[in-house]
Amino acid sequence: MTANMTASGANPTEKRLYNFSPGPAVLPVAVLERIRDEMLCLPGAGASILEISHRTKQYIEIQENARQRLIRLLKIPETHDVLFLQGGARLQFSMVPINLLRGAKDKTGSSPAVSQYIVTGTWGKYAVGEAKKEGAVETIYDSKPTNYDRLPTSSEISIREDAAYVHLTTNETIQGVQFQNDLSSPAPLVADCSSDFLYRPMDISKYGLIYACAQKNAGPAGVPVVIIRKDLLERSTDDLPG
Amino acid sequence: MTANMTASGANPTEKRLYNFSPGPAVLPVAVLERIRDEMLCLPGAGASILEISHRTKQYIEIQENARQRLIRLLKIPETHDVLFLQGGARLQFSMVPINLLRGAKDKTGSSPAVSQYIVTGTWGKYAVGEAKKEGAVETIYDSKPTNYDRLPTSSEISIREDAAYVHLTTNETIQGVQFQNDLSSPAPLVADCSSDFLYRPMDISKYGLIYACAQKNAGPAGVPVVIIRKDLLERSTDDLPG
Repeated sequence: MTANMTASGANPTEKRLYNFSPGPAVLPVAVLERIRDEMLCLPGAGASILEISHRTKQYIEIQENARQRLIRLLKIPETHDVLFLQGGARLQFSMVPINLLRGAKDKTGSSPAVSQYIVTGTWGKYAVGEAKKEGAVETIYDSKPTNYDRLPTSSEISIREDAAYVHLTTNETIQGVQFQNDLSSPAPLVADCSSDFLYRPMDISKYGLIYACAQKNAGPAGVPVVIIRKDLLERSTDDLPG
Repeated sequence: MTANMTASGANPTEKRLYNFSPGPAVLPVAVLERIRDEMLCLPGAGASILEISHRTKQYIEIQENARQRLIRLLKIPETHDVLFLQGGARLQFSMVPINLLRGAKDKTGSSPAVSQYIVTGTWGKYAVGEAKKEGAVETIYDSKPTNYDRLPTSSEISIREDAAYVHLTTNETIQGVQFQNDLSSPAPLVADCSSDFLYRPMDISKYGLIYACAQKNAGPAGVPVVIIRKDLLERSTDDLPG
């Protein structure tokens, strides 16, 4: 915590500490102060934000503002949509294959498609484990033999054009392995950007789906952000939980 | 809003309005004031509650306190567990059959069990729709022919002893049909108590699972409370999303 070290709530004996936690990470004091100041009464709502419906004008405005800021910051093209969800980024390990793998077909149009995973560390390995419960998974790169100390070269990965999607983890926090550039892929590229979301500009048009927990760089824990290419939204089958 | 009508945040021109919304409902001003006062610095944490991990002592204490209060208020026996989840009560329409129907067997021990639904209004109908995606559903009572104007008499419902569970909606908000007593059932009773949770004492021991969105009577929107008989936790199959 660099700014406003003496800021505190009603208890003046409490002080904010220096906070170098990688996540949940520190939030700007100005943001916390505004939440505090509006806790009893959100301007225009006559009630706390904890007491109003998600259908109120005031709440929709807050969510739409957040969406528009993200679109500006990441230059998200109109081909993509931004979703604020629940369940943390970890639920996306399942949501991605449930939505994008179950209904997908290969190039024959009649056989189920395969998902492909590039595993460069612990989180990618977890993602594979969840995907295997939902459909066919091919691990097309796995640096476990060298203890997750490297990225694949482009000649080391072979992406099927008709893969349901190709999944990678842009930054493996435990092993410290980070993709510094946007990969090109003939199949929809799905990226878990949880730990380096908003860390650098990305070419969003290269991705089918990006997901990230907010807690590292964007907001409080528990709110994953999903950026999805709109045509992929069509792929979900009708038998999924509402 | 009955108490402290002039309470407000830093903006003294903003006033809390009278709020008779059935949900998200009004929260006690004292609760909102405490959240406000501790927004920049949760006592003992040196940071906002929005910046700390769910594994910190301070957060665990808050959650455990809420759990203990609920246990005291509803006299929840040790046979049952309390879960605070995400996704709203509506996700429980799917979570219940995914966890309790998919793996359940009938009395032969080899055939899949059936779930039974008592439908007394709109929400029960939605619950049936989601359950049908996950397994066998028998609607054992449906008052649609009389526009959901009544409850079943005990002779009108026939519960299978080997049903995976029997589902009911304790209060149908749209039609205004409410079970005033706890039903007895030979199969685990699952109750959607979203709109009348904490409205009356319940005999929790009669239920296999109770779920309720917090927003009506217990807290802010988005946090469903689930009270589950511990032995039912075993029933979930291993192939479910983590």
